[in-house]
Amino acid sequence: MGLPSEAGRPEVFRDALLRAGVLIDGGTPGLYLRSGEFEAVARAVESLMRRQMAEDGAEEIHPQPGMTTRALGKSGYMRSFPQLAGTIGCFCGDDAAHRRLVCKLDDEEDWTDQQVTSEVSLIPAACYPTYALIASRGPLPVDGHRVAITSWCFRHEPSPDPCRMQMFRMAESVRYGTPEQARAHRELWMTRVAEAATMMGLPHTIEPANDPFFGRTGRLMATSQLEQELKMELLIPVSDETKPTACASVNMHLDGMGLKWGITTQDGAPAHTACVGYGLERMSLALFRHHGAEPRDWPPSVRAALWP
Amino acid sequence: MGLPSEAGRPEVFRDALLRAGVLIDGGTPGLYLRSGEFEAVARAVESLMRRQMAEDGAEEIHPQPGMTTRALGKSGYMRSFPQLAGTIGCFCGDDAAHRRLVCKLDDEEDWTDQQVTSEVSLIPAACYPTYALIASRGPLPVDGHRVAITSWCFRHEPSPDPCRMQMFRMAESVRYGTPEQARAHRELWMTRVAEAATMMGLPHTIEPANDPFFGRTGRLMATSQLEQELKMELLIPVSDETKPTACASVNMHLDGMGLKWGITTQDGAPAHTACVGYGLERMSLALFRHHGAEPRDWPPSVRAALWP
Repeated sequence: MGLPSEAGRPEVFRDALLRAGVLIDGGTPGLYLRSGEFEAVARAVESLMRRQMAEDGAEEIHPQPGMTTRALGKSGYMRSFPQLAGTIGCFCGDDAAHRRLVCKLDDEEDWTDQQVTSEVSLIPAACYPTYALIASRGPLPVDGHRVAITSWCFRHEPSPDPCRMQMFRMAESVRYGTPEQARAHRELWMTRVAEAATMMGLPHTIEPANDPFFGRTGRLMATSQLEQELKMELLIPVSDETKPTACASVNMHLDGMGLKWGITTQDGAPAHTACVGYGLERMSLALFRHHGAEPRDWPPSVRAALWP
Repeated sequence: MGLPSEAGRPEVFRDALLRAGVLIDGGTPGLYLRSGEFEAVARAVESLMRRQMAEDGAEEIHPQPGMTTRALGKSGYMRSFPQLAGTIGCFCGDDAAHRRLVCKLDDEEDWTDQQVTSEVSLIPAACYPTYALIASRGPLPVDGHRVAITSWCFRHEPSPDPCRMQMFRMAESVRYGTPEQARAHRELWMTRVAEAATMMGLPHTIEPANDPFFGRTGRLMATSQLEQELKMELLIPVSDETKPTACASVNMHLDGMGLKWGITTQDGAPAHTACVGYGLERMSLALFRHHGAEPRDWPPSVRAALWP
């Protein structure tokens, strides 16, 4: 009933999605137009996630897909993952500069040499715009705080794997508080992500993982993250049975974000933070992979979980 | 019951939205985080628009917020509106280049000098990714074709006016066909945009308008567009009573897009195209402006239109 995939060849699953009309080629690896069915599934997945998050009374926040370039610099993302980030370039020239631009367009040359980095960049992970906001409100209440946030994210990693889109939506629940509150968030969501996968009829495991830190120094950071089990991933076989895809992750930042952004608890200590992030595109693709191209034919229990 | 605004001072309406918690300052003009209430309204507005579009049996397409930089160049947008477009810049350096980047971050200098334009750009208007797709399918059927598309769009026009966000969603219905089919689309949607505004209890007019074409040559294009009434705008007073905001527009491209992208009708003639685009953020802000900060207190007829 599901769509085909083949070990080591993510393009087999991609091509099945293209043939079924779930995705439409967007002209470069990692860009797709998506069908009404795909979008209906992605929104239903988001609603299921939001119902989980609403149980804790999280504050709902919806960013535009951008944050300031200044905040992206401050966030540390360019230190750890510079290869993935996206800044926005704009044309700020006058009539003469525009004539040069138009000549290049006429000659079908590269016309982008006059683009200059603007004050806006793309959000790399949904929680990024929340830290400055929470810090600006002063010390956390005794119970800490929770934010539920859905955002478009950009990561420059062109790939034939449809699970590695350059732009995708992430639904996160972020916890700000004491070390105990952050750890409790992690434990709770380790259970909840597995429950969500079970409700959606998706085979899964949860395993320690590391982020794709850049360069030689990055390898040390990755090892340390793995050893401390700071990142746990919900793994589901999607485009490759032998290399399951991280469809959600539960992350502990210890006091890293608290120190960086100046978020403090009542007693003035740097806050600890933790977050769970679901990839809406990846969860949706997992559903198409396992249940087939036609959501109306999916198992009743899966449909009931998505459209209660 | 509504939120305040003042002629010539869009920041009065913006500050009312910030105080009410509908919007949260995003750190630079035109960027905001938005509340759960705002998002619920924007999604209800989109659903209303989509119900209108579904009456014609339009094909639903959902892009990511990006299109190829190549297609942006081909589209003509950089000729007419270079000042508004956004390309995406990425870091493609090695370990040594990354050390230079990290030094600049340490010294709190501008760190963006190594960003290079990537193969992905931001979508300036929702219909842009559709033309290459429709052309790739060969000549149009006798009845032409219709696409309903919602997309995040980027326009670099920082402003204190909350109606002029740098990133916003646009829901469009695009018609591809004969000159008669394109014109009929325009006439139909002139009626429908007014009906939508009436259902939502929003005062409005429909008037000819022009796009913000760049530079000196652009002024001639703007005049020609106005004279031919190729662009009609749904105007609603939102952030300034004396300068109503274009919350939707109905546009005729004549055979411009058909020629540029190679879209043809059955007889091989270049297709004519027309589109209607609703600004989901602007329509939502119009509702908050006229009905107040609390959607649950909005008039029953407005609520029934949004949440049927």
